[in-house]
Amino acid sequence: MATETKPVLHGYFRSSCSWRVRIAFALKGIEYDQVAVNLIKDGGQQLTEQYKTLNPMQQVPAVEIDGITLSQSLAVIQYIDETRPGPRLLPADPKARAQVRMISDLIASGIQPLQNLAVLQKIGAEKLLWAQHFINRGFQALEPILKQTAGKYCVGNEISMADICLAPQVYNAERFKVDVGQYPTIKRLNETLVEIEAFKLSHPSHQPDTPTDLQA
Amino acid sequence: MATETKPVLHGYFRSSCSWRVRIAFALKGIEYDQVAVNLIKDGGQQLTEQYKTLNPMQQVPAVEIDGITLSQSLAVIQYIDETRPGPRLLPADPKARAQVRMISDLIASGIQPLQNLAVLQKIGAEKLLWAQHFINRGFQALEPILKQTAGKYCVGNEISMADICLAPQVYNAERFKVDVGQYPTIKRLNETLVEIEAFKLSHPSHQPDTPTDLQA
Repeated sequence: MATETKPVLHGYFRSSCSWRVRIAFALKGIEYDQVAVNLIKDGGQQLTEQYKTLNPMQQVPAVEIDGITLSQSLAVIQYIDETRPGPRLLPADPKARAQVRMISDLIASGIQPLQNLAVLQKIGAEKLLWAQHFINRGFQALEPILKQTAGKYCVGNEISMADICLAPQVYNAERFKVDVGQYPTIKRLNETLVEIEAFKLSHPSHQPDTPTDLQA
Repeated sequence: MATETKPVLHGYFRSSCSWRVRIAFALKGIEYDQVAVNLIKDGGQQLTEQYKTLNPMQQVPAVEIDGITLSQSLAVIQYIDETRPGPRLLPADPKARAQVRMISDLIASGIQPLQNLAVLQKIGAEKLLWAQHFINRGFQALEPILKQTAGKYCVGNEISMADICLAPQVYNAERFKVDVGQYPTIKRLNETLVEIEAFKLSHPSHQPDTPTDLQA
């Protein structure tokens, strides 16, 4: 497939959904440009009319690629997987693919939306307890599922979209002071993932918009 | 593919995620058995230890199919699509597939999780306003996206997973007294969808567990 123009990722260093897309690009070896959308500065740059044309949900990420603009990280990741060479991000076997999507959606629909910025802003003072509640609820469900599906990675021994979702969600859990040690399979998988080059390069602590004091 | 045993859908008549799966089965012409999981009765039958083995998130749906148990409706729908004949639920063109997934995820990650039962129970007295807020936020984003992607259906002129997500979300919006008339594209698409046999048969008002007073 001809890819004359590099994709552009509009994202934020600390957004777990932006990190998912960065991991996918890195695993596939795809070069891309980044435009920082600071979710905090100026009351939130994702709320501008200009950004709204890229992602009407006024969230990150938004990706310009092959002449279209996509939001929703899992849609972007699967589009990349279906149009680019390199290691596949979903397994070939339909049952394993379904398990990858189940785990990815458990995180992307069942956990992350309940602890993202707009929701926590609406919750107010109770936001830490709220976030911990929903992350723990999700991890309590994820742990027995992963115990059944995991090999070296979330589903068997191949890295997949499920792993791309897991590491950023564990990062969020740690930010919200959830004790990830309660979930031995999640903990073990995450420890493997964060050592992988594509996960390291794309980590929130290494982005062009990472503030100096948060750089690792 | 050999499918000796009928799939079993564990769901609830009024759950929008259960309805998504019922629409997919109906569009594909797949026979299945239903087991009712009453989300209200006995404090919520999804909370039993027995049900937890089927879906550790303690939500509906859970689907037993081809020897595995899947939760997360979009994972189920895409598994059905990849393993069963019949009209495809995602288009062949990768860009159109990406748009279908973007719209589906906008609903499945961006709207539904914020107005589902467990969250509203935690919100308490303010739950109607909370649900309206997040449904309106989602529909305000969805409307301009659909204006660009829609033909007769959400993406072009073929029914897809995006339509399977849209009609149940509009049903929820109406339950929470959101004025869907504010969103002319959403309204127009939904009016087309609810006239389709597969959407009618699978509608919450026509299920084995629909209470008599809610049957249409």
